[in-house]
Amino acid sequence: MTDIEKRPHDVDFDSPDHQEKLAALYRDFATVGMTPLWTTRAGLMPPHPRPKAVPHLWRWSELYPLAARSAELVPVGRGGERRAISLGNPGLPGDPYTTPTLWAAIQYLAPHEHAPEHRHSQSAFRFVLEGEGVWTVVDGDPVAMRRGDLLLTPGWHFHGHQNVSDHPMAWLDGLDIPLVAETDQGFFELGPDEVRTKLTPVRSYNERLWGGAGLTPVAAVGARPQSPLMAYRWEHTDAALTAQLELENEGLPGVVEPGHAAVRFTNPTTGGDALTTMRTEMHRITGGTRTRRYRTSASSVWQVFGGAGTVSLDGTDRVLEHGDVFAVPSWTELALQAEDDLDLFTFSDAAVFEKLNLLRTEASA
Amino acid sequence: MTDIEKRPHDVDFDSPDHQEKLAALYRDFATVGMTPLWTTRAGLMPPHPRPKAVPHLWRWSELYPLAARSAELVPVGRGGERRAISLGNPGLPGDPYTTPTLWAAIQYLAPHEHAPEHRHSQSAFRFVLEGEGVWTVVDGDPVAMRRGDLLLTPGWHFHGHQNVSDHPMAWLDGLDIPLVAETDQGFFELGPDEVRTKLTPVRSYNERLWGGAGLTPVAAVGARPQSPLMAYRWEHTDAALTAQLELENEGLPGVVEPGHAAVRFTNPTTGGDALTTMRTEMHRITGGTRTRRYRTSASSVWQVFGGAGTVSLDGTDRVLEHGDVFAVPSWTELALQAEDDLDLFTFSDAAVFEKLNLLRTEASA
Amino acid sequence: MTDIEKRPHDVDFDSPDHQEKLAALYRDFATVGMTPLWTTRAGLMPPHPRPKAVPHLWRWSELYPLAARSAELVPVGRGGERRAISLGNPGLPGDPYTTPTLWAAIQYLAPHEHAPEHRHSQSAFRFVLEGEGVWTVVDGDPVAMRRGDLLLTPGWHFHGHQNVSDHPMAWLDGLDIPLVAETDQGFFELGPDEVRTKLTPVRSYNERLWGGAGLTPVAAVGARPQSPLMAYRWEHTDAALTAQLELENEGLPGVVEPGHAAVRFTNPTTGGDALTTMRTEMHRITGGTRTRRYRTSASSVWQVFGGAGTVSLDGTDRVLEHGDVFAVPSWTELALQAEDDLDLFTFSDAAVFEKLNLLRTEASA
Amino acid sequence: MTDIEKRPHDVDFDSPDHQEKLAALYRDFATVGMTPLWTTRAGLMPPHPRPKAVPHLWRWSELYPLAARSAELVPVGRGGERRAISLGNPGLPGDPYTTPTLWAAIQYLAPHEHAPEHRHSQSAFRFVLEGEGVWTVVDGDPVAMRRGDLLLTPGWHFHGHQNVSDHPMAWLDGLDIPLVAETDQGFFELGPDEVRTKLTPVRSYNERLWGGAGLTPVAAVGARPQSPLMAYRWEHTDAALTAQLELENEGLPGVVEPGHAAVRFTNPTTGGDALTTMRTEMHRITGGTRTRRYRTSASSVWQVFGGAGTVSLDGTDRVLEHGDVFAVPSWTELALQAEDDLDLFTFSDAAVFEKLNLLRTEASA
Repeated sequence: MTDIEKRPHDVDFDSPDHQEKLAALYRDFATVGMTPLWTTRAGLMPPHPRPKAVPHLWRWSELYPLAARSAELVPVGRGGERRAISLGNPGLPGDPYTTPTLWAAIQYLAPHEHAPEHRHSQSAFRFVLEGEGVWTVVDGDPVAMRRGDLLLTPGWHFHGHQNVSDHPMAWLDGLDIPLVAETDQGFFELGPDEVRTKLTPVRSYNERLWGGAGLTPVAAVGARPQSPLMAYRWEHTDAALTAQLELENEGLPGVVEPGHAAVRFTNPTTGGDALTTMRTEMHRITGGTRTRRYRTSASSVWQVFGGAGTVSLDGTDRVLEHGDVFAVPSWTELALQAEDDLDLFTFSDAAVFEKLNLLRTEASA
Repeated sequence: MTDIEKRPHDVDFDSPDHQEKLAALYRDFATVGMTPLWTTRAGLMPPHPRPKAVPHLWRWSELYPLAARSAELVPVGRGGERRAISLGNPGLPGDPYTTPTLWAAIQYLAPHEHAPEHRHSQSAFRFVLEGEGVWTVVDGDPVAMRRGDLLLTPGWHFHGHQNVSDHPMAWLDGLDIPLVAETDQGFFELGPDEVRTKLTPVRSYNERLWGGAGLTPVAAVGARPQSPLMAYRWEHTDAALTAQLELENEGLPGVVEPGHAAVRFTNPTTGGDALTTMRTEMHRITGGTRTRRYRTSASSVWQVFGGAGTVSLDGTDRVLEHGDVFAVPSWTELALQAEDDLDLFTFSDAAVFEKLNLLRTEASA
Repeated sequence: MTDIEKRPHDVDFDSPDHQEKLAALYRDFATVGMTPLWTTRAGLMPPHPRPKAVPHLWRWSELYPLAARSAELVPVGRGGERRAISLGNPGLPGDPYTTPTLWAAIQYLAPHEHAPEHRHSQSAFRFVLEGEGVWTVVDGDPVAMRRGDLLLTPGWHFHGHQNVSDHPMAWLDGLDIPLVAETDQGFFELGPDEVRTKLTPVRSYNERLWGGAGLTPVAAVGARPQSPLMAYRWEHTDAALTAQLELENEGLPGVVEPGHAAVRFTNPTTGGDALTTMRTEMHRITGGTRTRRYRTSASSVWQVFGGAGTVSLDGTDRVLEHGDVFAVPSWTELALQAEDDLDLFTFSDAAVFEKLNLLRTEASA
Repeated sequence: MTDIEKRPHDVDFDSPDHQEKLAALYRDFATVGMTPLWTTRAGLMPPHPRPKAVPHLWRWSELYPLAARSAELVPVGRGGERRAISLGNPGLPGDPYTTPTLWAAIQYLAPHEHAPEHRHSQSAFRFVLEGEGVWTVVDGDPVAMRRGDLLLTPGWHFHGHQNVSDHPMAWLDGLDIPLVAETDQGFFELGPDEVRTKLTPVRSYNERLWGGAGLTPVAAVGARPQSPLMAYRWEHTDAALTAQLELENEGLPGVVEPGHAAVRFTNPTTGGDALTTMRTEMHRITGGTRTRRYRTSASSVWQVFGGAGTVSLDGTDRVLEHGDVFAVPSWTELALQAEDDLDLFTFSDAAVFEKLNLLRTEASA
């Protein structure tokens, strides 16, 4: 019951006559599709985010075998397009969404399989937990996928994948599918059934052109909405995290907080997020460190890349194992504790809400 | 049935054994909340937007009497906060949303009523179809509301309304409630029960400071995400539209297309959209003009401010009357035909998707 | 003598032999055009700006009669292009420059005279101290010039002037001529001998299109380096200054400091300076007010538009009379004292050095 | 004589009386420091840039021995600050300026010498033609200087140099001294006499933090006017140029024009120029290639890093040898011909004039 009923007015709100009129009004509202704010405001506009999505953790040890089983039963090809299986948030039944804006999936490619080319408005990336031998071909540019690498497929770039090895390979796919789907922004187009190049270079065209820090090809200067660099190699990411922690030991700035290094994957033409709709970062927490408690209106997904530790989500601890994926809904308090050096990849929708002046964050010791 | 089933593979997909294994796999997927892309891709990633929202028109002649009836039955006050009744898209049952991102409502304030102060992450505006006598108080700044005016309440500004006249007043409220709600970005805070000033100046503080084109207070230079100018008066909007059409008659550029003038309400500190999440514009189509057919991935809401004509939405014509509101979902083809000079106010989510590099538009004669 | 000579070294610096070798070295340097930093550093890189330009004030009562005399002796026409006479800083002999980057001139047009069209890289503006009857035609757009108005001619726009009245008219011209000349950025092109339109509308095309605050033509959205609004009318500037002071009286923010109102003329498509190379502002200081003391690395030129008072430049006071122009070199301490309400127009090169991260400012009570 | 004299007017311009009055007017102008535009316009505003600076080439074979001789005669120390000898453009007598905005010098540090710390508004860089063994300490961060490296000292960072080796080392210094000096933007402050750290790490702090392409420390996100990465190592520059030419051979885009690779040194937080006032680039022209002819309103300085070839400046050819430095004034036509692979470092003021919307460029085959 709201204050409304208590406010002075020249009618008796409790009278049967009034209640009847009100019911009639509400029926008439319904007829034309009208809904009063006064009956829905509290739900629509809570004091702080009250996500339907819930904190959730998926075990890699469960995900991987299921993906592998699917490879025995379901081929990859035109129509289905990808052998990717998404992680649906238990709080969002019916939708295969990991958070309200993000879609995380495990994609699996059997030896010598390939996935046909297509393109879509949705931006995508692959993060490689383990393995190698797959090339993702992005607008004709064959990009090797190796352990620890982040590979981008910005929106509306044709792409396909091929596994040239004798081993299966699985990785984490991240897309902004829910955001794009729920707001009707999606376009999709099929490309060739076969990837357009079978080349398997160690270094892709985009890396050769954009792979030097602060080195911009004169022929290609100018801001681009999405990163033209589409492969962020583990050796560089690892080196950057290592350097931050070494700098910390030398008393120099660099880390986010004591024992916590982090790099954001950015677009070298602007310094902003590599993708327009998803923020991507790699974090390293040194053994024995417990991070501050942190919450943000952004929702995020994390994957354990290396090490061991614990994640605390709104006060509930979960032990983290290799490859585990967890979802952090908006305004959920997150703290991480590392048993030994803990490496985590994460992506979030902060890139969206920062641009809209909606993003909020809060940290406490 | 997709191509998947037709592709060569060393198993017999139609065999009962295979079907059984597949069913078992899908059950195991479900157990951990996994959903295959290959069974959902076509729905999640259609070739072009396939909105659940539908084109829809609400008659002002129906809306207004219902709003007026509610004033006899429901007071305005703390808790419900506003006597605003939203227009729910018939394609989005259950949610009082006009489009997937936009919330349009008719708000009604009886003589000498007031609505208490609050603030929220959601950005809001009021567009005044008719009447006057209400002041909206935004962070202590009393802003008169008069016919044809657009009044902003950017996110996280305290605001309340008071009707100081002897007449009721109704207007169109526009908010980004669906976007903020569905992505869990909303914060809400109550303010004073009474608006903090009873002053009723003709011109608000923000207008006095920011109301001159190209005249920036030296004490307040610098880009702001949201417009510091929060009242766009009809006399200026009307003059700007009139000028565009006069310029057209003189053979000078200005109009969007022949017979079609339009102004966008912008933030004078950046030149961008006045609000970060909603684009707001006023259009005037001269009598006899039929606009090109146009579609965009943005969704929008329109209100007829003056004149008469017809709107064509995906080929279906609807006659437009004074005050009518219509919703245009993503990728719906829109054309407008003016019988006599037709003035329309519109707001859309293009401000969001332009920033995310997702916005698409297409026009044809 | 620097520390260099005092530093230990294995040679006897005072020995004739060493001095001879040094002289020989310096001769050899000169031969190839080399100059040692150690002999020039102190002059090239002083601890703070030491401008050659000096604070200087020109009396309008002297300038105007000289300009008028020139009209009897020198026609306006092709080649000379303009009857403009620049104010050369006494500290910059040989160059007709008001400061190292700015060129201020009085331009005078006799009754029914006109100045032919041309365009140039240099950006220009006119500020009108008194009179009316002249139209400046900017890329075919006839812009009335009236008392108190600021009229822009952004770089590379064709422009000419015509006086359609029976009275002479004089105004202040401001250009970035020194900056462009000394850095070799200037291009210049002749246009028609006659201005391309004899129309004399009250309101120019650009004002009709861009004259509403926060009202952007949909057909012309997007950032432009220079302002598309090219006339800033006194009535609006005056109203903005008046409003700031009224707000101050009501206890609301708006003024720069107590009793000191100021507006900056800005580009409505970006919110930045109206011109890329010159900042333009109008200041009003209420009678009895003395501003804080202020200095900046920017150089500026000021003209007294109305009222009476005193300017203090590096501690030297000068009485200000109607129309007086004064130059404020870099890092010169400026304070203004108003006897009665003092209105001043000013332009500076702060727009340049802010973009280059070089601008410094300092204020003290 | 201009057209002015030929234009109709009701006076006899050739009469002695008129000439006498004109002379009197010009004397009176001079008294108050006024200069007519009509007598100076052609010089102040030429049809295209007519720089006083001239194309000029300095031979490294002459510069280096002179620098070495100075080391025997002049110590490095407080006051003179640096053993840097600037290259004065023959067209700019009196000023030790290489172009109107740029200052290029050879700096020489003898074995075990050091240059004391200071900071200044002027931005600086070092480009290393040959040698190693010097560390430049920038705000306490020791940065190794090695062959082919570009090392930045953005404005207002303390810096000193120390040579820890048994060999002398010389390099090219580039600063915006003329621009800053002529516009009075310079501040200068002494720091410690000794560099504040004697550490000589292979990799500086800034490289460890910012050296990964697209890898931004989360603790340091956000745009900065100047590059936080202050060392651009030859191995990376060389690799980027090599890659562009390899891509060209593979039929892929990357080079500026056939046989001509170029990288710009950029600020990873914005993608823009590494310094706010100077554009810095490295070019490689393959043996046998002749570039298009190119001119720009920017002025530039070039140094031959490797290879052999010819430069054509306004049609005059000069043979290029190792280390040679040449100045290219504004609007001078430049073409380069490589005998064998020709590597050139260049810096220019394009970074300034691009921001001011003044930059022009023109290319022809």
